[in-house]
Amino acid sequence: MIKLSKMLRLDDLKSTQPEYLESIFSIANGHLGIRASDPISPSDNAGTIVNGFYEESNIIYGEKAYGYAEKNQTIVKLPDLRQIEIYDENDDKFIHTQLQDMKLDMAQGILHSTYKISNAKNEFINLELTGVVNQEKSQFIGLRYKISSDDYKGKIRLVQDMKFGETAQDSDDPRKSREITTLQYDNVLTSQNQNVLRITTENSQLFIEMGLTTDKNLKQTFSLANTPITFDVIAAVGNINQEISLDNVPTFEEIELESKHFWKNFWNQSEVKIDGDDQLDQAIHFNLYQLESSAGRDGKTNISAKGLSGVGYEGHYFWDTEMYMSPFFAYTNPKIAADLIAYRYNILPEAKKRARTLGVKDGALFTWRTINGKEASAYYPASTAQYHIDADIAYSIYRYYNVTNDDQLIKKYGLEIVLETARFWTNFGSFTKIDGQQKFCFFDVTGPDEYSAIVNNNYYTNRMAKFNLTFAIELIEKFPEKAQQLGVSEDEIKEFTTIRDAILLPFDKEKGINEQDDSYFKKPIWPFEQTPKESYPLLLHYHPLTIYRYQVDKQADTLFADFLFDDISKDQLVKEFDYYENITTHDSSLSRSIFSALAARLGLKDKAYSYFIATAKTDLIDLQGNTNDGLHIANLGGSWVAIVSGFGGIQIKDGLLYIQNNLPKLWNKLTIRIQYQGRLLNIEYTQNNTKVTIISGDPINIVVNGVKSTVEK
Amino acid sequence: MIKLSKMLRLDDLKSTQPEYLESIFSIANGHLGIRASDPISPSDNAGTIVNGFYEESNIIYGEKAYGYAEKNQTIVKLPDLRQIEIYDENDDKFIHTQLQDMKLDMAQGILHSTYKISNAKNEFINLELTGVVNQEKSQFIGLRYKISSDDYKGKIRLVQDMKFGETAQDSDDPRKSREITTLQYDNVLTSQNQNVLRITTENSQLFIEMGLTTDKNLKQTFSLANTPITFDVIAAVGNINQEISLDNVPTFEEIELESKHFWKNFWNQSEVKIDGDDQLDQAIHFNLYQLESSAGRDGKTNISAKGLSGVGYEGHYFWDTEMYMSPFFAYTNPKIAADLIAYRYNILPEAKKRARTLGVKDGALFTWRTINGKEASAYYPASTAQYHIDADIAYSIYRYYNVTNDDQLIKKYGLEIVLETARFWTNFGSFTKIDGQQKFCFFDVTGPDEYSAIVNNNYYTNRMAKFNLTFAIELIEKFPEKAQQLGVSEDEIKEFTTIRDAILLPFDKEKGINEQDDSYFKKPIWPFEQTPKESYPLLLHYHPLTIYRYQVDKQADTLFADFLFDDISKDQLVKEFDYYENITTHDSSLSRSIFSALAARLGLKDKAYSYFIATAKTDLIDLQGNTNDGLHIANLGGSWVAIVSGFGGIQIKDGLLYIQNNLPKLWNKLTIRIQYQGRLLNIEYTQNNTKVTIISGDPINIVVNGVKSTVEK
Repeated sequence: MIKLSKMLRLDDLKSTQPEYLESIFSIANGHLGIRASDPISPSDNAGTIVNGFYEESNIIYGEKAYGYAEKNQTIVKLPDLRQIEIYDENDDKFIHTQLQDMKLDMAQGILHSTYKISNAKNEFINLELTGVVNQEKSQFIGLRYKISSDDYKGKIRLVQDMKFGETAQDSDDPRKSREITTLQYDNVLTSQNQNVLRITTENSQLFIEMGLTTDKNLKQTFSLANTPITFDVIAAVGNINQEISLDNVPTFEEIELESKHFWKNFWNQSEVKIDGDDQLDQAIHFNLYQLESSAGRDGKTNISAKGLSGVGYEGHYFWDTEMYMSPFFAYTNPKIAADLIAYRYNILPEAKKRARTLGVKDGALFTWRTINGKEASAYYPASTAQYHIDADIAYSIYRYYNVTNDDQLIKKYGLEIVLETARFWTNFGSFTKIDGQQKFCFFDVTGPDEYSAIVNNNYYTNRMAKFNLTFAIELIEKFPEKAQQLGVSEDEIKEFTTIRDAILLPFDKEKGINEQDDSYFKKPIWPFEQTPKESYPLLLHYHPLTIYRYQVDKQADTLFADFLFDDISKDQLVKEFDYYENITTHDSSLSRSIFSALAARLGLKDKAYSYFIATAKTDLIDLQGNTNDGLHIANLGGSWVAIVSGFGGIQIKDGLLYIQNNLPKLWNKLTIRIQYQGRLLNIEYTQNNTKVTIISGDPINIVVNGVKSTVEK
Repeated sequence: MIKLSKMLRLDDLKSTQPEYLESIFSIANGHLGIRASDPISPSDNAGTIVNGFYEESNIIYGEKAYGYAEKNQTIVKLPDLRQIEIYDENDDKFIHTQLQDMKLDMAQGILHSTYKISNAKNEFINLELTGVVNQEKSQFIGLRYKISSDDYKGKIRLVQDMKFGETAQDSDDPRKSREITTLQYDNVLTSQNQNVLRITTENSQLFIEMGLTTDKNLKQTFSLANTPITFDVIAAVGNINQEISLDNVPTFEEIELESKHFWKNFWNQSEVKIDGDDQLDQAIHFNLYQLESSAGRDGKTNISAKGLSGVGYEGHYFWDTEMYMSPFFAYTNPKIAADLIAYRYNILPEAKKRARTLGVKDGALFTWRTINGKEASAYYPASTAQYHIDADIAYSIYRYYNVTNDDQLIKKYGLEIVLETARFWTNFGSFTKIDGQQKFCFFDVTGPDEYSAIVNNNYYTNRMAKFNLTFAIELIEKFPEKAQQLGVSEDEIKEFTTIRDAILLPFDKEKGINEQDDSYFKKPIWPFEQTPKESYPLLLHYHPLTIYRYQVDKQADTLFADFLFDDISKDQLVKEFDYYENITTHDSSLSRSIFSALAARLGLKDKAYSYFIATAKTDLIDLQGNTNDGLHIANLGGSWVAIVSGFGGIQIKDGLLYIQNNLPKLWNKLTIRIQYQGRLLNIEYTQNNTKVTIISGDPINIVVNGVKSTVEK
């Protein structure tokens, strides 16, 4: 069949396992997400997710200590809106479903699914369900049901309702979610054609209202003969703690139209087109489509690890946002990147408290996994100890600012966040004499690589802290008035500078490469040859202490810093890439994208390509085996990074846009759209050429393949 | 009032808080312990404890990972045997109690307590309760009740029964215990004068039987006038999973007599007498009395952190046994020291499994806290990571063997344990090049100091591992046949030797002292001056990550190795002691005894003395504030170590007994009894003299105050 780059069909997937399909074909708009459930017999994972709508529960520890996270924050799985009950003339329910087809039209944001449904007598009818979510008026979902006869002819009775009470199950796998037993469901409105349910969380004390409305009745009887029956249900899912009204809901056609406009505009700004591999072209479109769908756009919510496609990781926000997702938004939809920064600003007061709890007398420490700003991780060695999240957030502001020059955001949020995180570093670290020199060190930290924990001077962390201080100094100098308001003194600037210059960056002279942490190279290398395939991911088969005492990486760590700062010689980078690649398991879905981008930068085209394939298709081939729980949103963003920064060689350095053509050999052409300081650029890479076009905006000086040039419109 | 060294009275204590008294005046015999409860209105902590009788429950983790301890093991608080119900003529209960006196006769093992008891009308009677536990026939407890009139005259009705159902409460303080909800209570026998209760644990599937028998009736009515009423109740608490019989129970007098004999013999072998400070003299007697009482004597049980005096730390056995308690037994009652080793031998199969779970392919890893051999700690950084427990156990065998020359034990248990722990080290550690030399290192370990965790090359751990290998090689050479049975080859001996010689011992050249771990001195020193008193113990007021990133010790760590091996120059030891003393909080009750002993060895008599006072009186002054939960048994043993190894300067080196008179200035005389290779020695220290007498056994060559001499009988 013909592959369409912005269409995903059932045939494009290897698995038709219902929960897997629910994740893949989920549709969302940053506010709400609907898993693509079977409307007749949904799986346990089916349901609706509202960004940031969570319940709390006490975290139970085997052994508790001071300062541990107190409460779980668990995203609520709300009732499934796609469900419908169909009864035959004898009032027997149609209960068996056969999925016929599913297709996601990513050009328009429309999900089509068709089912054959049978009753106990094995008589069949057909159900076609079309779903579309409103993107701007984000409360609304349009659902169009088309029912036609197959061999069953006669009356059918339909009941449209919201089933509730099912939440996720508890699991030992930290990547899943947990059961919630403290939800209250109240029917706020029940009429013939309208139905509003209010769900209240007992502990976090939030509520949400969900409603259904239809032009016909929510319970109706039809005669099914030769003509199919079609009817629309419009669902509304309100904002947190706000009542909803079903009085002026849009029609299905209005929702559909708005969706088409939205996605047309989205692709116009964000297009990435691969000529030469239809599957990868489809995959990258899928990734960007789902990434956009998951992003909170109100400054109060963010992007959870599974977006709005599932309740895995309990709906928590991680550093994934800043380091994997926000690059795409900064370069294609800066408004969303700014909203994500605003979210961090909103939780800054919590971050300040957290720094105090961690014994740091000034500055802010953002929590590792959270919805409401408080730490929600029950295992500090691979969470709270990942202090680098502070600098990651600062970096996302730096990136945003480089791309947009948006002084307003810096004044409103940026400077304060960058300053408070810089203050954290200066108060968290300490000077110590190393080889006769006073060096500034960070002890007992965990870097991005969660297969090493509680180490000293993690290279990535230290390099990022150095950046954080550098950027703080820059912004203070650029916005002296605002800095003064925030209490910055000359002494503080001096302190920032001294510390910035003294931060230790572990380097191994013998190997000639940066060392992941102070003692990393002293440890033995993981016995890869004695490790059977089924023992991966290691975290599920070895005690943390076993993993920690070896050189083995879950994901890019030192190499991530190399990727971000591009500040070591190519010679060193070649060695470094080679060394760390050999000891990296890629057990984290965050790993391969960075390896791909770096390999592309190094000219290792085949390697970059094979890492990219795995990155691009992580969910489409269920590489990690747990797409059931939701999509790997960070990796979706990572695949964009791999294309744009890797193959497309796009970087901003010293205020200049660099473009380097690293096109894979198998591709004929790659087209990328990005925004840059008010312009919309179209960049076309072919094997022999790199062409930059300004679609809108002023002329620009850029460096293409090492040559500085000016591009006119 | 006159202080009697082997008598402890209420007046000797600062607190009369009931739960505190319950711990202090608990009586026990290694098999069972009875808290000294108020027989009329016992506290929530009152009850009976049987060594090793525990229930399991699932450990709930905030976030679980592979290889984590699966189940809690919680010592069961069994019904309180001291309780009695007394009713007046109107059948109103006497419910108010005033404790009049309590005294523990440690020369005979008898606890007297007297109470004034009143009914609702405020009429008083007197109750005198004498308790004594059988030491050899360890099932039996004698309780003698004497009731006399005060201003109440008339009939009284007495009911003797076992109240059940109350267990400890859950607590966030890891030093307390946890609630058990899965006990089953069955009345096996109920007659007029006998009563047997069976308690079964649902999960661990153990049972215990407890019985009461009396020469009169368990429910009886008396007329109370001028003559007091006296009656005896004999309680029996069976062995785990064994039925009991109340047919041939001893009389109160028989139990009393046996106890007197036992304790007379005990003090004859174990006497430590301080002339010059009655309080300390009393304290050390109390300590030894309670230490002896808590020790399991059947090879299947051990000594829990709280002995049989309370359910704190859930009744778990720790390294405390080997490093703090077993020295006393090795030198005064080697049979018990041997039993404690037998216990470890019995759980060796579990230790082998644990080593596999921790990814170590050969050898055994003893668990950090356990009753049944499986790991029961839910926080691995300060438990499972304390691998040093393996070498601690080997060291207790070494100590025992030095004192006893008991080849049989080595063949039966010792060699196998020492070998399997040695094998653990060789497979757990790894070679790495340090300053051009191949050094054998241990990564991601925690030493005794729990204020540093997951460090590399903890000095204590490495030094102990080195010892473990050395001792293994020695034993293999001495018992070649047994070694061969255990599969030791020439190659293995060679491997042991190579590794032993290559183990890294961190040393700081600049400071001229051993470094606690590879990076310890790089960290900043804890801001002691900004730490208010109420913020100690730090573990209750700071996040672990905060504590870990500073130089701050909970207890002796490197200094503990110095104490054990006496292998560094005095000059270095002086510097080392000084350095670590300055950064040690003594937040662990295991700390001060070692500081005292080392200070004594260094001639820092005042310092040694003041550490000793705190050690000796830890429970008597409730220094840690939690004696309520039970006595600090390791510290009791530590106080003996401080006297005997510190002030008494007793050490065995290269098969020779060394005695050094380090008598505190304030003492006139110190007398110590120890056993040494079949002899019973009496050692008297005065300010000017050291006198060694052989009470029984052959002449001996010893080194007294640096002079080698032979002591004849």
